[in-house]
Amino acid sequence: ALYRGLDSWDEVVGRIRGLHTDTLRKLSSKCEDRFMAGQKDHLRFGTHSWSHFRLTTGKPCCEAGDAVYYTASYAKDPLVSYAIKICRSDMNDTQQQFFHSLAVRQSLPVHFNIQQDCGHFLADVPVRMLPWEEEDEDGEEKEGDMETNAERGGKLKDSQASSSNDKLGEAAGNLKTAGGLRSRVVVITREVPFQTVADFVRAGASRHESHPELYERQVCLLLLQLCSGLEHMKPYHVTHCDLRLENLLLVQCQPGNPWNLDFLEPNNNSSSNSGASAAATTTCPARLIISNFSQAKQKSSLMASDPGTLRNRSRLAPEIITDTQYRKCDEFQTGILIYEMLHRPNPFEEVPDLKEQEYTWEDLPPLPVRSLYSQGLQQLARLLLTVNPSERIQISEARACLQCLLWGPREDLFQALGCSSVSGATAGQREATLQNWLDLKRTLMMIKFAERSLDTACSVSLEDWLCCQYLASATIDTLSLVVHILQQP
Amino acid sequence: ALYRGLDSWDEVVGRIRGLHTDTLRKLSSKCEDRFMAGQKDHLRFGTHSWSHFRLTTGKPCCEAGDAVYYTASYAKDPLVSYAIKICRSDMNDTQQQFFHSLAVRQSLPVHFNIQQDCGHFLADVPVRMLPWEEEDEDGEEKEGDMETNAERGGKLKDSQASSSNDKLGEAAGNLKTAGGLRSRVVVITREVPFQTVADFVRAGASRHESHPELYERQVCLLLLQLCSGLEHMKPYHVTHCDLRLENLLLVQCQPGNPWNLDFLEPNNNSSSNSGASAAATTTCPARLIISNFSQAKQKSSLMASDPGTLRNRSRLAPEIITDTQYRKCDEFQTGILIYEMLHRPNPFEEVPDLKEQEYTWEDLPPLPVRSLYSQGLQQLARLLLTVNPSERIQISEARACLQCLLWGPREDLFQALGCSSVSGATAGQREATLQNWLDLKRTLMMIKFAERSLDTACSVSLEDWLCCQYLASATIDTLSLVVHILQQP
Repeated sequence: ALYRGLDSWDEVVGRIRGLHTDTLRKLSSKCEDRFMAGQKDHLRFGTHSWSHFRLTTGKPCCEAGDAVYYTASYAKDPLVSYAIKICRSDMNDTQQQFFHSLAVRQSLPVHFNIQQDCGHFLADVPVRMLPWEEEDEDGEEKEGDMETNAERGGKLKDSQASSSNDKLGEAAGNLKTAGGLRSRVVVITREVPFQTVADFVRAGASRHESHPELYERQVCLLLLQLCSGLEHMKPYHVTHCDLRLENLLLVQCQPGNPWNLDFLEPNNNSSSNSGASAAATTTCPARLIISNFSQAKQKSSLMASDPGTLRNRSRLAPEIITDTQYRKCDEFQTGILIYEMLHRPNPFEEVPDLKEQEYTWEDLPPLPVRSLYSQGLQQLARLLLTVNPSERIQISEARACLQCLLWGPREDLFQALGCSSVSGATAGQREATLQNWLDLKRTLMMIKFAERSLDTACSVSLEDWLCCQYLASATIDTLSLVVHILQQP
Repeated sequence: ALYRGLDSWDEVVGRIRGLHTDTLRKLSSKCEDRFMAGQKDHLRFGTHSWSHFRLTTGKPCCEAGDAVYYTASYAKDPLVSYAIKICRSDMNDTQQQFFHSLAVRQSLPVHFNIQQDCGHFLADVPVRMLPWEEEDEDGEEKEGDMETNAERGGKLKDSQASSSNDKLGEAAGNLKTAGGLRSRVVVITREVPFQTVADFVRAGASRHESHPELYERQVCLLLLQLCSGLEHMKPYHVTHCDLRLENLLLVQCQPGNPWNLDFLEPNNNSSSNSGASAAATTTCPARLIISNFSQAKQKSSLMASDPGTLRNRSRLAPEIITDTQYRKCDEFQTGILIYEMLHRPNPFEEVPDLKEQEYTWEDLPPLPVRSLYSQGLQQLARLLLTVNPSERIQISEARACLQCLLWGPREDLFQALGCSSVSGATAGQREATLQNWLDLKRTLMMIKFAERSLDTACSVSLEDWLCCQYLASATIDTLSLVVHILQQP
């Protein structure tokens, strides 16, 4: 049947396009299986597992906004790395927020860019794993008590060294006399972060100067993953509401090949130390994970479906209803993140009055043009920071813009297209050119995968997967829309 | 530059076609590297290596027309299997023929379908490895001496058992008293045959009845490999002249993936025993190897370039000059092989007078139509058995016909094409349809490789490689030519 109608070129082209689309979808879903290997089997660690965890090193692997992460392994499966997340804030606060964020996160199906827990429980945590608490307590005696500090430093070192080999439960027991234990909510996750996006941005300041093209492309790839995670939350009416650089974690991402997976851990976190340097040099720095849902808002489906509530709400102005208020909050915060990731301050922190006025795009500070991506990111930031939420673009549109910035069609094609209404290309011509672009791009992607099948490594990069997702779902209509959005004057 | 001219569909199509062709060529050459891994590094075993070889089993792995093969391993590289080839015929004969065939084979560059030796030397071979010689010697005493036979049988068993573990040289030493040694030319090859095509055809008789489609497709794939090997010999003016089922060897062919190659032997001959059963069930039964060059003719380049010889030869009728006589000999013998592989006798053995007449296609016995491939093979056999050598098709054309039979375009497309001159499709329309077919076929091949890149096995089959070679080199012109040849009335 595949070979029928071979005398009609149109039919053949249609069939080839269909084959490409189907294959890209299939490849994309196979990539997902590979990149999320192990993550979809639901692990549930409980309090009883606590003593089976061992810290890989005594130092935190990542210090995030809300928590500190330690790399650990589980005795029954020692080759897989896990992260132990210990929340920073004090006991009561943490627990409340934790159960809130837990409820929110549990309502979301698994997603590559959203933190997932493999179990959480109250555990006795050695004080040495809570250095910030010690600091707080010692706040008063900090000055003039150097000897004690030095002494404590020595003790910490010792316990760190021993902790690498001891079971956590036992180590805790041993430490009871030395430093004591604190009961804390502990979360186990498979994804071991090696830094936050805040760390990445800080470390990238000089790189942004020396290699603006690389750095800004990395920013696009991180933003794309952020948008992708946020987009996943939309159908579940979840708004994060606290998108900050320090709540976005980076996890190393080398899916490796299935053979290696048999020998190494599926999440490949063994060399977390090299994560930061790899992130600095490869195009796609890392996998981005959205964490800290403590401020998240969720439109309760219960409330919405209750007719009484519905009747009451129907009389309220839209800006008063929380759901509506927060509807485009993440979009706005993503706009701020663009500034911050490009080493510019949050415009609303710079000019606190700005929000009071009905500001326009002109009021937003311009981003310096340093690379191919700068202008597109500027445009995107403006669209995301639009004062009126109903005029603000949606996260799905932002995602589409980032895909377009990363993989095209590029500005120069728009020019050739005559998309700028000055030139006289007809809509038909423009569509034809976009279709040609898409056909060529898909062919190249197919070739890339085909050649990879005979590579020694046989591995797919995260960027290839992200690009594959784009090309699998792109149509002339979605492309036209994005080109239109990015071209808005 | 790749994205220039995106407004012109013709240009885009041209570029996509160019990309596909280039990629298929690249894939095809990568496949070659993989399938011939190890074969291109020139190994040279000498007499001194003999004692380092150990037989894997005491039984021959393959009994070919001119020789018997034993699987063996080399002490310094025990994971790689080798075949030890011991010629059947008697000493003086063997050596002469051997040095002739050696000279011929050494003039040919390495090819996937031509036997290659990794060293040859005179060695002391235990008599138990030359069972046919014992049979010959015992010919007279065969009857009425059952006791001796039984006794010898017992001894053989013993020596077989011990031979699996002993070094060949030592085992030979131990056996000196028991059975004696014979000095024989021994050839070491990397490719361990598990059967000859004669064995394959014999074993396939019932399969040909029960699964004609599968069996005849396998025959096409073996013939394609034969033609490919013969085609390789043409530029070197080598004619085999003794193409018989028993001179064509089958070698297992699972290139595996590069990881496995590190651990297993590159030629993957470990499970030779399962070769025959795998050959029976998989579409591409095995790799075919042309062996026994003892009857091969080679046009001496020396003679041809000598002006005196040239002047003399220039007065001779073409059929008298050996080179010319033998020029299409392999083609003819390939035609006979088609009959034999399809379980029909050699037509010229059936009707010995046939050759005396100027026979036509009608005089050749018809092949029964059992599958999609039967008619094409019949046509090919006729073209190869054409009485007049200058009208006989060349081996390269036969190769192209087999590719077309295997992977299309198929008969039904020809019909639709109106290639049969009855229908009125213009040449232009026909070309367009062939181009469409080719574009679609290449897209499908690309997809196949692309999907393979994410397979767990990540391996390419021999058939994929062969098909890739076809699609990489096919053009509208070559396709038109083959369609024309196969459609000859």
